Amino acid sequence: MAVGLQPPTALFPVKGIRLAATHSGIKSDPALKDLTLVEVQAGASLAAVFTQSHFSAAPVKLCQQHLSSAPAARYLLINSGNANAGTGDAGMRAAIECCESVAAATGVAVNQVLPFSTGVIAEPLPVERIKQALPGLVAQLDADAWLDAAQGIMTTDTLPKAVSTRISIDNQPVAITGIAKGSGMIKPDMATMLAYIATDADIDPGVLGQMLGKMVKGSFNSITVDGDTSTNDSCVLIATGASGVRPEPQDERFLGALQQVFDQLAQSIIRDAEGATKFVEIRVDGAVSEADARSIGFTIAESPLVKTALFASDPNWGRFIMAIGRAPVSRIDPDQVDLYLGSVRLLHRGLPDPDYREALGQAEMSRDEITIHVNLNLGKAGTRIWTSDLSYDYVKINAEYRS
Amino acid sequence: MAVGLQPPTALFPVKGIRLAATHSGIKSDPALKDLTLVEVQAGASLAAVFTQSHFSAAPVKLCQQHLSSAPAARYLLINSGNANAGTGDAGMRAAIECCESVAAATGVAVNQVLPFSTGVIAEPLPVERIKQALPGLVAQLDADAWLDAAQGIMTTDTLPKAVSTRISIDNQPVAITGIAKGSGMIKPDMATMLAYIATDADIDPGVLGQMLGKMVKGSFNSITVDGDTSTNDSCVLIATGASGVRPEPQDERFLGALQQVFDQLAQSIIRDAEGATKFVEIRVDGAVSEADARSIGFTIAESPLVKTALFASDPNWGRFIMAIGRAPVSRIDPDQVDLYLGSVRLLHRGLPDPDYREALGQAEMSRDEITIHVNLNLGKAGTRIWTSDLSYDYVKINAEYRS
Repeated sequence: MAVGLQPPTALFPVKGIRLAATHSGIKSDPALKDLTLVEVQAGASLAAVFTQSHFSAAPVKLCQQHLSSAPAARYLLINSGNANAGTGDAGMRAAIECCESVAAATGVAVNQVLPFSTGVIAEPLPVERIKQALPGLVAQLDADAWLDAAQGIMTTDTLPKAVSTRISIDNQPVAITGIAKGSGMIKPDMATMLAYIATDADIDPGVLGQMLGKMVKGSFNSITVDGDTSTNDSCVLIATGASGVRPEPQDERFLGALQQVFDQLAQSIIRDAEGATKFVEIRVDGAVSEADARSIGFTIAESPLVKTALFASDPNWGRFIMAIGRAPVSRIDPDQVDLYLGSVRLLHRGLPDPDYREALGQAEMSRDEITIHVNLNLGKAGTRIWTSDLSYDYVKINAEYRS
Repeated sequence: MAVGLQPPTALFPVKGIRLAATHSGIKSDPALKDLTLVEVQAGASLAAVFTQSHFSAAPVKLCQQHLSSAPAARYLLINSGNANAGTGDAGMRAAIECCESVAAATGVAVNQVLPFSTGVIAEPLPVERIKQALPGLVAQLDADAWLDAAQGIMTTDTLPKAVSTRISIDNQPVAITGIAKGSGMIKPDMATMLAYIATDADIDPGVLGQMLGKMVKGSFNSITVDGDTSTNDSCVLIATGASGVRPEPQDERFLGALQQVFDQLAQSIIRDAEGATKFVEIRVDGAVSEADARSIGFTIAESPLVKTALFASDPNWGRFIMAIGRAPVSRIDPDQVDLYLGSVRLLHRGLPDPDYREALGQAEMSRDEITIHVNLNLGKAGTRIWTSDLSYDYVKINAEYRS
């Protein structure tokens, strides 16, 4: 059902990164990979952002502990099929035990291992299966295994999600490759479900952290499937330095290439959203603050009535008005609002456009990719949000998730 | 599909109120009533609350104007099938024209007529059909037509919603009868879709307004189907005084009877929510503020993943944790949270209850009426929210609404 999304091809290896993924037995289908190991060479910089959930999962807490005590992380261990969230002390012990096993198998310190989990919440993590699979994973590590890793972190995703690019800086090639997973419980708050982006550029940790904050804002923090923020959202950006190229912190070409990888990964999550039949971009301009613009954008994006109209390709744009009207914003003047569906104007300064015809709206709504554009004509702030529709299949997928 | 809701029976007339409803041609099916007139005797008190939507509909704005210029409203004209919202100046002129016609047919001033509309947003109101039906409606006014009126205001409701009670004060009978409509686009903000409650008690307008504010808080302002607040929400409380009985402002028996009518009407909207197969009560206790408690209650109630799990009768209570975790509250301590599904404890002070078994959770989730109880163990504030599940039929009803 993915909207305009193809399986990834041609993923460039990133010097200083090796990966491996396997089936350890967390998922019941033996054809599905559920355990992924990422090796980062010594001396690399790493930055990470995590879910803001009050109920963040044990691995999220342990990642944060390890990153604060030893920034030089060397291994990322990612399991899919089980979130290890809502599992209390036993869940924390399970996450520690996984890290200890990776440390023992590779000779690094325990706090140089970062654990990540995604899947069903509130079920015990099957630690023994993970430990048994580890030696094989370590032996399998390979610089060309990005696609395996993208498959290894999938849950309800219908396609692996990966984006790769290579640019030249000072006549030296620099690679940027990233993978992500997630298609439901998606409204990342400071990060997404799981995303890992690596480059072999040489970037200091402090600069890398700032870059990550800037990159996630317009990408993973500007998408929503259902408004539901996961307990396990994590996004990691790694710069190995192995290319020997050191871009300036403000290098526009490098930042542009990096932003493009983030944006495409974030888009790929929405294009493969649970049950999605539409890819929808919502633009809000003319707001007095970016917070107001985002509030309106997300209110439209998460309205079940807007989402069912999108699914039905029904130009019932009264529902857009309803959603704008209920957005919790500081200021709005209904008599100033312009509203567009694609290139068709619906409202001009608050009044229905006299040239609007149902057939025009119908033509826009019948597309797979739809743009809704609101101009509040009050200020200069704006935003762009990506979302999907609400279909029978969203209900089916989530009603049957555990069965 | 209504959950535990029967058609209303035995509605007591309210002295000083007469009603009539008919088919005027706004709805295409001639068997469906779409126009309702309510006559209020001179000297009655009336209080009203309206949607907080930035895009409130023309009739909402006109009601507010009329109430501020002439508190002694004598007629309520309610059409269903068309919301007269997002219709600009033409919509306002249409609402005024309807009020003028009622005034001409009954001999009252224009600002003594209150207009209400509910239905599709952003389509022109068919004023001529309404005007043609008015003389017949006026001739038909009857004190015993509360059920007709409840039918006349329906849109996607599968059942008319009405509640009636009679108490005795100083050995004198006092009647309270109310009607409401709404089953989607339901998260009333200060009011509900449309609700009209009348009593023949004698209550001063100022006291009545305070009573209304208190009554809606735990009833219409504590329910949600989809988080979508309508452009047309209105709730009106009328006290005709025709019984000759004047309850004290703090009369507990009268206030209790009135609150019961409000609560049952609010419940009836949730029991008949679009596609609903479950009636769900969410209790949040131990919060530091009522705002926090309501934020958590509504976040659980509106989470698509919680709602699809409820539809599937799947005790996937990890989703309750996810929703609590993402609620925008000032303070929460995950290690203090108790969580119950019906009488089954899921979490005790943040840890999974060791006695929990899937079969226990399954038994609770399989019921038609489900209670989710969160105790934050931080303070003394709490709330109670009513909601429904998210089913295939919700998507179907809202994807096909206009077709």
